Parts: sequence; C-alpha cells; structure tokens
Amino acid sequence: MEKRIRKHFSRELEKIKKLILSLGTMVEERVRMATKAIESNDAVLAQRIIKSDYEVDEMEVDIEEECLKVLALHQPVAVDLRFIIAVIKINNELERIGDQAVNIAERVGVTAKSDQLEMFFDYSAMGEKAQDMLKLSLDALVKMDYDQAFKVVMMDDEVDAIKEQAYDRIKKAIAEHPDKIGYLINLLLISRHLERLADHATNIAEEVIYLIEGEIVRHAAYERD
Amino acid sequence: MEKRIRKHFSRELEKIKKLILSLGTMVEERVRMATKAIESNDAVLAQRIIKSDYEVDEMEVDIEEECLKVLALHQPVAVDLRFIIAVIKINNELERIGDQAVNIAERVGVTAKSDQLEMFFDYSAMGEKAQDMLKLSLDALVKMDYDQAFKVVMMDDEVDAIKEQAYDRIKKAIAEHPDKIGYLINLLLISRHLERLADHATNIAEEVIYLIEGEIVRHAAYERD
Repeated sequence: MEKRIRKHFSRELEKIKKLILSLGTMVEERVRMATKAIESNDAVLAQRIIKSDYEVDEMEVDIEEECLKVLALHQPVAVDLRFIIAVIKINNELERIGDQAVNIAERVGVTAKSDQLEMFFDYSAMGEKAQDMLKLSLDALVKMDYDQAFKVVMMDDEVDAIKEQAYDRIKKAIAEHPDKIGYLINLLLISRHLERLADHATNIAEEVIYLIEGEIVRHAAYERD
Repeated sequence: MEKRIRKHFSRELEKIKKLILSLGTMVEERVRMATKAIESNDAVLAQRIIKSDYEVDEMEVDIEEECLKVLALHQPVAVDLRFIIAVIKINNELERIGDQAVNIAERVGVTAKSDQLEMFFDYSAMGEKAQDMLKLSLDALVKMDYDQAFKVVMMDDEVDAIKEQAYDRIKKAIAEHPDKIGYLINLLLISRHLERLADHATNIAEEVIYLIEGEIVRHAAYERD
C-alpha cells in the first residue's frame, strides 16, 4: 500500500477499534444494570434495559457497515483482514450480550410481580464475573493480550459451576415450594441467561486468541454453546 | 476485474456456496438425529451426535479459512463482499446449531437414564419445524429467495409458541410430580435448546433477507435472542 493510503487505513482501523470499544462499554453497562435489577428485583430498571436495547442494535449495524466499507475501500490482507473479520464477529457477540441483558430484564419483570421466596440464591457473583469477563475480553482485543483472553476462557468454567449450584438449589426449592414454580423457573432461566452471557464473552476471548495464534482454539474440548 | 480473474472468482464463489451447503446438510442430519433421540429416548444415538461434533467444527474452520482466502486473493466489493461476509456469519450459526444438537443429545443422555413419566409432551412437531426452518433458510441463501427467507422468520413464532406450551405442561407436571424434578427440568431444557436451534435458523434467514434487501431486518421487533 502507498504510504498515504496506508496512513488513511491505519486511521480507519483506529476508528473501528474505538467503535467496538464504545459498543463494549455500552453493553457492559447493560450487564451491570441487569445484574442490579436481579439483585434488587427492580422492574423499573428492567424496563429501562428493554426500552434502550435499540441503541445497541443501531450501533451494531453501524459498526458492521463501517467494517464493510473499510474492506471494500482498502482491501486489506493477512493480519488486517483477519482483524476486521474478527471485529465483525465480536460485534455480533456484543449485540447478543445486549439481548441477554434484555432477556434477564424480562424475567425480572415477571419475578418482581410474583410472590417471592426469601432470597435463596445470590446472583451477584455470577453477574459480576460475567461483567469482568466482558471487560477482560475487550481489553484483550485492544492490547492483543493472549494471557488476558485465556483468563476469560478459564473464568467461563467458574460461571458454569455457579450455574450448576443455582440449578441444584432451585430444583430443591421447587420440590419444597411447588406453588412457587413460576417464580422459580424464572430464576432458573435467569441463571441460564447469565451463563449464555458469559459464553458470548468467552466467544470474544476465543476470537482474540485465534487472532493472536492464527490458530483455531474455538473448538477445543472445553468450549461449546 | 479482468475476465480471466473474474471467472476464477466465480468458481471460488461456487465452491464456497457448495461448502456452506454441505455443512448445512451435515448439520441438518444432526438435528434430525437429535429429534429422533428425544422421541425414542435413545442414549446410543445421542452419544453418536456428541462423538461426531468435531466434524462440524472442522468444517466450520475450513469454510472460514476458504472465505478469508477468497477475500484476500480477490478483494471483492459490493454484493460479492457482502455475500462472503454473510457466509462467514451463517457458517458460525450452523456450527452453533450443531452445538444445540449436542446439547439436546446430552440431555437425552440424562433423561434416558431417569425414571420417566408417560410421554406427555411430543417434541416431534417442534423438532421437525426446526429442521424445516434450517432447510428453507439455506435454500433461500442459494436461490436468494426473499419469500422463503421471510417464511422462516414467521415459522420462528410458531416454534416459540410450541415452546411456551411445553413450558406450561412441564411446570404443571413438576407441581404434580416433584419427585421427577430432575427429569422434568431436562425436558424443559430440551425445549429451550430446540427453540435456540430455531433461532439460529432464523438468524440465517435474516442474514439472507439483509443480503437481498441490503437493509437491516435483524433488529426488527419480532426478533431477539
């Protein structure tokens, strides 16, 4: 590439990096709000998450358009091409994390109305871990930091373990309080949404590892779904 | 593009189309097997799905590599560029449909061992609809058929409705048979996996619509998750 065009391309890459980080920050905030909504059974906060999801959707569309524009104009190869394809995929994951925040908010909307049991499962650890994973995975992308990305993959096992604990406790609670079944199944699904949210963060981290290694770890034994 | 290179590019595009259809056929077969495993509570068949998932994973990796190669070599723009990016995303969705077949197989592995209730929910309708959606969405991609793709999006509502029915029945069954809670929660999760499977098929169809319209329908009101 000619020097002037190369410089222009670098600027475009910087712009894409900034955009994907902005979306990351926006989505992180949704996850924080969703975790808080679960903890405080806050239907109003839940409604705010649902109502503002379009912002995430719009930003995802803009970022994909920007990536396509850069691909068409600069026709990058090798590392640069892989980077932009990775951003397109990560963009998709971020939008889905936003969707999971909405799914959680919808469940909270239901549980907030129901007759509840004493808080018997604390989702804050799971929610915070998912937030950390998201933060770390995006940070790993920007710094191209292998260790950080790998840490996210490991953290996913911890989230899965907490989900299993939640399942066990909720199953027992259902057996003891069959009248509260609707409420309890909503709690069960909340833990599932948090788990999937962490899965999407793991997908981002694996995309970063793939980018760094130029090697596929997406399908290693520890990962699925 | 020079004529000879253009011809070469057309051949590459045809190759990519064939590859994504092969993966589609492979994944379709997994969905068919998973539906059958649910119906017949067949742990052996379930095990076969789990054991052969690596084939789907490997093929996904090959297809992405092929797409990256074509992007780097031919540097397509406009419609061709969008098509290849769509294939990369659809490829990802197909691999995740394969994962859902594995998730279902794992649940069947558990339910097959448990003390069961008389079959009180027939998953075959849901499984067949999901298979049809997958078939239609890939067919829509090859033919660039808007109507067919749109049909898939509509079918997703039907799958969601069946899932809601399943939830209601399972909730009632849990209240009546609290001792069978483990088994019943597995059934609940099977319906959730089938629903997500249909969601991935819907994502493929929406990618096709997007490709045809050059317009974003991914975030229309009917869709999320």
